[in-house]
Amino acid sequence: MNYTLWTDLRLAPRADPEHVIEDACLVEQAGRIVWMGPRHALPPQWQQAKHVHKLDNRWVTPGLIDCHTHLVYGGTRAQEFALRLAGASYEEIARQGGGIVSTVQATRCLSEEQLLAQSLRRLDALLDEGVTAIEIKSGYGLDLDSERKMLRVARRLGELRPVTVRTTFLGAHALPPEFAGQTDAYVDQVCSQMMPTLAQEGLIDAVDVFCERIAFDLRQSEHVLKAAQALKLPVKMHAEQLSNLGGTAMATRYRALSTDHLEYLDEAGVLAMKEAGTVAVLLPGAYYFLRETQLPPIELLRKHGVPMALSTDSNPGTSPCTSLLLMLNMGSTLFRLTVPEALAAVTHHAAQALGAPDIRGELSIGSRADFVAWDIESLSELVYWLGLPRCALVVYQGAISRDLRKESS
Amino acid sequence: MNYTLWTDLRLAPRADPEHVIEDACLVEQAGRIVWMGPRHALPPQWQQAKHVHKLDNRWVTPGLIDCHTHLVYGGTRAQEFALRLAGASYEEIARQGGGIVSTVQATRCLSEEQLLAQSLRRLDALLDEGVTAIEIKSGYGLDLDSERKMLRVARRLGELRPVTVRTTFLGAHALPPEFAGQTDAYVDQVCSQMMPTLAQEGLIDAVDVFCERIAFDLRQSEHVLKAAQALKLPVKMHAEQLSNLGGTAMATRYRALSTDHLEYLDEAGVLAMKEAGTVAVLLPGAYYFLRETQLPPIELLRKHGVPMALSTDSNPGTSPCTSLLLMLNMGSTLFRLTVPEALAAVTHHAAQALGAPDIRGELSIGSRADFVAWDIESLSELVYWLGLPRCALVVYQGAISRDLRKESS
Ligand SMILES: [Zn+2]
Ligand SMILES: [Zn+2]
Repeated sequence: MNYTLWTDLRLAPRADPEHVIEDACLVEQAGRIVWMGPRHALPPQWQQAKHVHKLDNRWVTPGLIDCHTHLVYGGTRAQEFALRLAGASYEEIARQGGGIVSTVQATRCLSEEQLLAQSLRRLDALLDEGVTAIEIKSGYGLDLDSERKMLRVARRLGELRPVTVRTTFLGAHALPPEFAGQTDAYVDQVCSQMMPTLAQEGLIDAVDVFCERIAFDLRQSEHVLKAAQALKLPVKMHAEQLSNLGGTAMATRYRALSTDHLEYLDEAGVLAMKEAGTVAVLLPGAYYFLRETQLPPIELLRKHGVPMALSTDSNPGTSPCTSLLLMLNMGSTLFRLTVPEALAAVTHHAAQALGAPDIRGELSIGSRADFVAWDIESLSELVYWLGLPRCALVVYQGAISRDLRKESS
Repeated sequence: MNYTLWTDLRLAPRADPEHVIEDACLVEQAGRIVWMGPRHALPPQWQQAKHVHKLDNRWVTPGLIDCHTHLVYGGTRAQEFALRLAGASYEEIARQGGGIVSTVQATRCLSEEQLLAQSLRRLDALLDEGVTAIEIKSGYGLDLDSERKMLRVARRLGELRPVTVRTTFLGAHALPPEFAGQTDAYVDQVCSQMMPTLAQEGLIDAVDVFCERIAFDLRQSEHVLKAAQALKLPVKMHAEQLSNLGGTAMATRYRALSTDHLEYLDEAGVLAMKEAGTVAVLLPGAYYFLRETQLPPIELLRKHGVPMALSTDSNPGTSPCTSLLLMLNMGSTLFRLTVPEALAAVTHHAAQALGAPDIRGELSIGSRADFVAWDIESLSELVYWLGLPRCALVVYQGAISRDLRKESS
């Protein structure tokens, strides 16, 4: 059976600068790694490969994983951004149709094809940086048909591009205008109608809820988690972003894959996460964009060994971001993650938050051959630069999906 | 004589959202714009072009200008970055050879070819974003031969790539180790030996000095400016970054093109800039990377009508940045520049700071045909996104230098 030999790589199987295989080889067969190790140990059975790729001693890491995005939406909020900078008040912006409602309107209006086209552009920017797996949430539709449209687009993105897409149903993202003053009724609709229908259609890999004073309270959030549990869907939560409601502690009782944002998380919440194996997904793009000053409790997360992931939170209102590499830098510059922590945060810790059985965020025998070759001298450069480096090569399930080597000088 | 007609553009001649020519045409001849305006007004003499490019209603702005960079240097400081995050003290880092001295050593060690290769990679990243003119400083050589090498590399970058390079001699960037304790003697060497020699060789377009407690004091800085004045070289200054020494006010007495950083600038300094026509070059990358909290006096600069430019400050120690678009976002998000201010700050205000007679940072009849076509819906998107958009097309002196249109889906 056909196999491909990759040679001349500096292999960092867990993107960890402390665990590197110099002068490594990797053998791929049917999209999986069947052997990897130092060249001198390459078994004879793999030495006669018909397909050989030399990587010129480039660093190789697992493909990057963006584990928290709202990538699918209509329009932008660039106009609102400009108005705010020009001094417009929240009221004026609302009068001009700004805020999340404007994204809901824009998303509802678009056809599935239009929504796909707008989202592809953002996805392609992420893929150019070496992303091979991504989570995409619904939550700008807020009615059955529009949420379905978003989730279908998310699925199609994964078919059109060399990337694994995990869908998250976030019907409980915001209150749609037609339910003004009837939050409980909307939550009921999310739980008893939208979620089971879309789950039935195979569109939901996980369920999320925005637990916050400006969104859904603890009781309403728990309603959502219970409904997910009944459908055997894993859960996650937008929690403790603007205040400490205790959402995280509650989510851990439902074995949440992750809780996300966490600026206001306290030590009890951290301990609950540790206990439940819940990943802390940190979103420095939103922190930066909102000019937040309350830092997430990095020291406590570190002290208690809670895995930390970093993600773009790509969304039009609070993190119009399509660069996971920039999030690496912001994770370190703003949140003070160390370089190994930052790299783990977009590979194996992000994989854990993703909850996809086949995505490990590390390279090992048996794992999927999703990896990136980089034009860098040290792994630290992935975190250090603002704007560099570009990846030289992206490999998805064994096939080259991006080759930027020709552009190097 | 041959000319080229560009049609179907949304032309923003000064990158100003308020002054746009819809459905515009532009005629280029010998690298210059010979006509531009709405399509219906295109004079008959330009209607029979042999070469026609349709831009599909894309937004077109002047080429971007990065007016303050230290782009040419050896090595990176990624290792130092990692050590600092891991908790290493300044002493430990110094012991491991970190700090600016390490960049000086690395720069001195490289051959001209090696230095060129390392710098090209950074330049190419900037050019991919639509930069068509750039300032590059010396200042990591700190002896005659090494400063010459840096400036020669800067000149060669401009020959190798479709970009206008303006060189700035920054011999007074830091004290080289061999002059420890003899700052005056080094300044004297800068002024009486290095500067005149390199000016004579045609390598210097402007002169800069780092006026700060940790670098050169007011008197030493003035020595440098006087020497530049004697050679009829325009000056600029790194000023008021960490403290208010009054460098800006002094530099304006030498009609400085710009003073740069300015976090600690006071109103007297702002007024002096206004009076002298000096540009305020703001460097949000360094502000961000150093986690500075003292904001430059944007309100005062705005109130007194001092032109503000934004630049990458691309350098290995405090702004390892090769994205001018990211600086647009940081200029607005962190410094609260409005969208029109941010766009002016990388076009015509940056041109003013550059001081190159032929670079205006705006498109008009007679100006150089350096422009960028963007895949965006509104100019605000250039400031709004973190990671998007990529430019579709870059035109330098009338010729297409980057064409990313094929990649769009
Ligand atoms: Zn989110
Ligand atoms: Zn500088």
